[in-house]
Amino acid sequence: MLAMTVGIVGLGLIGGSIGLALRDPGRRIIGYDPVAKSAEVAKSRFCVDEIGTFADVARADVVFVAAPPDSVVSILEQIAKMRAETTVVTDCASIKAQIVDWAVGSQSTWFVPGHPMAGHEKSGAKYASAWLFRDARWILTPVTKTDRTAVRAVEALVKAAGAKPVRLDASEHDRHVAVLSHLPHVVANAISAVAEPLTHHEIGAGSWRDVTRVAGAEPLLWAQILGGNAVAVSAAIDSIIEELRTAQAALTNRDQLLTLLYEAKQIKENEGKRASKEAAKEVAEPEV
Amino acid sequence: MLAMTVGIVGLGLIGGSIGLALRDPGRRIIGYDPVAKSAEVAKSRFCVDEIGTFADVARADVVFVAAPPDSVVSILEQIAKMRAETTVVTDCASIKAQIVDWAVGSQSTWFVPGHPMAGHEKSGAKYASAWLFRDARWILTPVTKTDRTAVRAVEALVKAAGAKPVRLDASEHDRHVAVLSHLPHVVANAISAVAEPLTHHEIGAGSWRDVTRVAGAEPLLWAQILGGNAVAVSAAIDSIIEELRTAQAALTNRDQLLTLLYEAKQIKENEGKRASKEAAKEVAEPEV
Repeated sequence: MLAMTVGIVGLGLIGGSIGLALRDPGRRIIGYDPVAKSAEVAKSRFCVDEIGTFADVARADVVFVAAPPDSVVSILEQIAKMRAETTVVTDCASIKAQIVDWAVGSQSTWFVPGHPMAGHEKSGAKYASAWLFRDARWILTPVTKTDRTAVRAVEALVKAAGAKPVRLDASEHDRHVAVLSHLPHVVANAISAVAEPLTHHEIGAGSWRDVTRVAGAEPLLWAQILGGNAVAVSAAIDSIIEELRTAQAALTNRDQLLTLLYEAKQIKENEGKRASKEAAKEVAEPEV
Repeated sequence: MLAMTVGIVGLGLIGGSIGLALRDPGRRIIGYDPVAKSAEVAKSRFCVDEIGTFADVARADVVFVAAPPDSVVSILEQIAKMRAETTVVTDCASIKAQIVDWAVGSQSTWFVPGHPMAGHEKSGAKYASAWLFRDARWILTPVTKTDRTAVRAVEALVKAAGAKPVRLDASEHDRHVAVLSHLPHVVANAISAVAEPLTHHEIGAGSWRDVTRVAGAEPLLWAQILGGNAVAVSAAIDSIIEELRTAQAALTNRDQLLTLLYEAKQIKENEGKRASKEAAKEVAEPEV
């Protein structure tokens, strides 16, 4: 049997890391990036076996589209015209509603919408890592028409990359990531802006470093993500402002403040318990 | 010359870590904690050479009061009655206004208000570390009456613990920590509360983990800290809400959103530049 081919469109942090995580003698990994310099960096870091044309990549057995959210649909439309009969395609965009609308509208059976829950504040294949997806959740949001064999093929590679596939409805996905991923970025930017006028930034310690780690992440990408998920992100911002106002009101009432802080401790403990439970349970084979 | 004695009142995370960081053949470290179990943990983890009575500790050459903020003034008053003639005392509370008021009112020359900018979300000497203060800033807010020799004695130990002493005015201190330390805790609690009703917490990744790391920290301590710095913390909450509303308004206007995200990137870069500058410059000997 010939080696399987994996195509990657977009060789940034995510595309590059997918390549590194999947490199194996049994897979030929072909990458494409419209920016020659990005492709070059990915090749020099051994993220891909070779750089191909868009047409080469579009005919791979499985294609990962790791492009900014706004470009995904037009890339899918191009791939639709050029793919081999059995090519399966997935994407990595952190917002799914529009892309899933396209999947439904186009009646494509070969496209499995996806989103690896991994990343960091640096961008580009320069920072790609074979470990980026290790133990991360990789969300898939297949639609009714999506071919089950296609979903299985993507899930197999997601696991090979070290991640755990999770299936979610696209709107559930967007609502979850608004809080768990997009809001942390909004908050990190906001708190950094509050601190900017201070004169002694050097006294910030661990809590400051962590709360602001993702501040200032790639504007062109994040404008697409936050703008693309505007309704859910706006609701999340309303919710955190409500929580902040509650905390503010409690500052001058010690009993209220204690109640609130004990609630926060309880919530943190719930999170810890959920994490232990997740770690303990066998990753159940997804139903297909 | 006899070994110097260092006293530590309060053997929690901070007191225990001070002991570990200062242990040296040239120093005898005596600890005291009103809770026998806490003293025992600190002793069993070698945070102190010995556990003494409050009176023993109060007569050390330098005493660190590492107690919750609300207890500091009454402990200082007790020490004032029991200290040796040359005993120098410092504290570790993360709010300084009330404590500095006491320093001014009592006209004590031997007390150097202090605040090590270090800690983490776990409490107790069980989590104490000799490395906790390494490269951390340790703020001192001496007042006019404070004896310069006392300040020098505290600064020497702060450096021995691996930290960098910084002098600040008490009100400047409280305004800075409201943003750089207290607000991160408020925000971590608030965002955790927003996420609590979700059903798929397991998909949260690095940005989620970091933004919520300090959530749920010790309620009894944090009620004192946040309540004690209520005015500055309240102002910081107003400021972040203003930033969040600006971000929210920009979600549906791509140009505004991009401008905002480029500003955030610039702010992050400024922070990076300041950090490099700090790292590059020699730690100038503080003027005394």
